[in-house]
Amino acid sequence: MFPFRPIGFVRSPYGDAAQIPKGPGAEHQAEGELELLPEFETGLADIEGFSHLYVLWVFDRVDGYDLLSTPPTDDRAHGVFSTRSPRRPNPIGLTVVRLIRRDGARLVVRGVDMLDGTPLLDIKPYLSSIPAEEIRRGWMADAEARRRAGA
Amino acid sequence: MFPFRPIGFVRSPYGDAAQIPKGPGAEHQAEGELELLPEFETGLADIEGFSHLYVLWVFDRVDGYDLLSTPPTDDRAHGVFSTRSPRRPNPIGLTVVRLIRRDGARLVVRGVDMLDGTPLLDIKPYLSSIPAEEIRRGWMADAEARRRAGA
Repeated sequence: MFPFRPIGFVRSPYGDAAQIPKGPGAEHQAEGELELLPEFETGLADIEGFSHLYVLWVFDRVDGYDLLSTPPTDDRAHGVFSTRSPRRPNPIGLTVVRLIRRDGARLVVRGVDMLDGTPLLDIKPYLSSIPAEEIRRGWMADAEARRRAGA
Repeated sequence: MFPFRPIGFVRSPYGDAAQIPKGPGAEHQAEGELELLPEFETGLADIEGFSHLYVLWVFDRVDGYDLLSTPPTDDRAHGVFSTRSPRRPNPIGLTVVRLIRRDGARLVVRGVDMLDGTPLLDIKPYLSSIPAEEIRRGWMADAEARRRAGA
């Protein structure tokens, strides 16, 4: 077992999971803050130079997991590792946010999809992208196509 | 504290950290395997349809952390959250791999940069990219420019 502890907490406009836009077309433009504990502020040195950050966090209000589940965006079940379901064996969330500015130990960011108060595990610079034309999105593309066809 | 447990282990050609290519120009083309524990195999259903995956894992051979450190690619110190240093408050690694094929509970992938035997925490579909022209890479771009200038 690996015990991890919060390095800080998310401030977001979402108090309830039902408020968070979901699915492949969901736009995450919500502004929020990554508020680090004072002891970790030094670890943010030079972060202002990065436009985008990876944020690792904990689905702390989820209990247990399902290996198979039907996402809100499909009518078929998929393996948990093929989805972004919060009910994962290790309930770790991953979000790419845009850094707007830093105020000391707080990062103001755009693109939060976490609940207010979510514990933060790590922040990393976002460095490079896979070219869009190389990405295949499996069942998600199929489910979109079925929805577009009105099936 | 959040206790996480391995869902499986990485098989990679790297037995020693010194063998792993590092830095901004490093090419991670090494082939390896993500070997899930049998109890989690069902969670891989439909993963074959995705070209790229996020892999979350543990720097399990690292002890302690530094809030500031000088990366191998620069001559200046930076905050740990502005780097990919393994010496992080929560030693979680994040790698984007290309999925080559699945054999039961094993995923054959390209792009591993983990040591052989590294514990896996999670696998998620890689869905979209930030357009390359929108990404700013802070001190990493500066350090590259200095190296190019022969400084």
